[in-house]
Amino acid sequence: MLAEIKKEDINKAAEKISPYVHNTPVFTSKFFNELSGAELFFKCENFQKVGAFKARGGVHAALNLSDAELKKGLVTHSSGNHAQAVAYAAKILGAKAYIVMPDNAPKVKVNAVKGYGAEVILCEPTLEARESTLEEVQKEKEAIFIPPFNHNDVILGQATCAKELIEEVNDLDIIIAPIGGGGLISGTILSAKVFGKGIKVYGGEPEGADDAYRSLKSGELVKSHTPDTVADGLLVTLGDKTWAIIKEGIADIILVNDEQILEAMKLVWERMKIIIEPSCAVPVAAILKEKDLFKDKRVGIILTGGNVDLSRNYFS
Amino acid sequence: MLAEIKKEDINKAAEKISPYVHNTPVFTSKFFNELSGAELFFKCENFQKVGAFKARGGVHAALNLSDAELKKGLVTHSSGNHAQAVAYAAKILGAKAYIVMPDNAPKVKVNAVKGYGAEVILCEPTLEARESTLEEVQKEKEAIFIPPFNHNDVILGQATCAKELIEEVNDLDIIIAPIGGGGLISGTILSAKVFGKGIKVYGGEPEGADDAYRSLKSGELVKSHTPDTVADGLLVTLGDKTWAIIKEGIADIILVNDEQILEAMKLVWERMKIIIEPSCAVPVAAILKEKDLFKDKRVGIILTGGNVDLSRNYFS
Repeated sequence: MLAEIKKEDINKAAEKISPYVHNTPVFTSKFFNELSGAELFFKCENFQKVGAFKARGGVHAALNLSDAELKKGLVTHSSGNHAQAVAYAAKILGAKAYIVMPDNAPKVKVNAVKGYGAEVILCEPTLEARESTLEEVQKEKEAIFIPPFNHNDVILGQATCAKELIEEVNDLDIIIAPIGGGGLISGTILSAKVFGKGIKVYGGEPEGADDAYRSLKSGELVKSHTPDTVADGLLVTLGDKTWAIIKEGIADIILVNDEQILEAMKLVWERMKIIIEPSCAVPVAAILKEKDLFKDKRVGIILTGGNVDLSRNYFS
Repeated sequence: MLAEIKKEDINKAAEKISPYVHNTPVFTSKFFNELSGAELFFKCENFQKVGAFKARGGVHAALNLSDAELKKGLVTHSSGNHAQAVAYAAKILGAKAYIVMPDNAPKVKVNAVKGYGAEVILCEPTLEARESTLEEVQKEKEAIFIPPFNHNDVILGQATCAKELIEEVNDLDIIIAPIGGGGLISGTILSAKVFGKGIKVYGGEPEGADDAYRSLKSGELVKSHTPDTVADGLLVTLGDKTWAIIKEGIADIILVNDEQILEAMKLVWERMKIIIEPSCAVPVAAILKEKDLFKDKRVGIILTGGNVDLSRNYFS
């Protein structure tokens, strides 16, 4: 897919979603520049609609559906930001949304999804239960499944984030983003290729959910996985579409442990006064871990989201 | 004082401090507009140097000292943002800073002050101990005292915040800010008068530290005070200089309780993804409490600071 994607494809996606998503601001931080030795540009997708970049892909995929498809409604399973993204996409398009969520999902997330008018279907908190419940809803309602990452329209939607960053910040040497299912990082690779001049794309991944790292090192898509990390948005494994782009286009993947993730998250809260979620702190932690790699470089960091459970104290 | 202040005075202060402080961004929030029924413009001083508007007044007061005075160094007592502001002002001017802090001040705040190269003198956590320790340091070092609010140069420095807000957002009807010692609100009153067209200035104050409210209602400066509120930046009472301006220029003061303050703070964290401290949430809480007053108005809110103790969970 990587060779085939053209500027126009991403420009078209950006144009389509522009009425519904923010061109989020890019922050700088003297503190983090001094700490890292790099010149950092933080693309604040925590200020995005639904509080995460996921709005881009969800809205873009929904906008590419036919009226007949939209009439049937949208369905997905997610305990996190993709759930809100699909609920939001359905709301702005006047479609129904059915969101399958595990019954142990934080109440604040369930309420956020309901707040967009979506119907929440709770199921047991296993992947099997989520998939079988999704299938039932799909059959019963004939609703259209919007996958969280392994889908061309979702990837193109996520690509609009790096496009904006490259257009706003000249001469970036590197862009780094976290890797979960790979939707954002593969979109970032596409935009770096078509809009950038030799920009390298790095991925940050939790040690406790290192499937992409293992895939990259072995050259084969790894699906075996028992994730255990505080970065709860990065628990899934890559799909074939995202893996194909990552394999071809990523510079490298940097692993960080939970301690490093929480330390980076705390520093961002403390020094930049913005809320980022643990998954979002992964690339920040990666830069602080591998300083030599980023020293004196102009580095774009995609801050992916800011949806945290405030009843929990991450730092005590 | 109110009648005497001219545009040039505040413009001059703004020009002087501009190399050392940020013209902070103004955020909007669809969520808060819908919740309040008003059109809100959040002036984000939590992104200011030292994490609070206090940098403006501290830097301005220090810049107006002579070289001979600067050579003696700066001194103040504060457990909070003013401590960092004076330490920061001293650092950028190459002066020494002696900061008297209560020995129960959070370690993170003590470390932040030391991080600017200031000398921290710990004392017992009483006003008497703070003042007597300050006096000792003043005598011993001959250092110049930079008061936290009751000082013309400090007030003029804080006035630059509302000046920027008025210059960026057209046709504001109202500006609201919290009231502690009154430095920010009196500076805001001055700027609203000289730069605005009929802008009303409201104050938000915690019920548990309502000295300004009682002063306004009685017409006499109230000094008796046993504050008890989560808004730990607003515990002090007004000074004669700030009271004179407030008495003459404030539209009204709205009281909010700690529950309302923490609810507003949580909503800002959750929905705007920015960190604000409890004192900073007071005007947000005031708007949500007195919706009729702000309905359909264009309202500037000064978000005063974002220095919180992250080891504490405010919302559990």
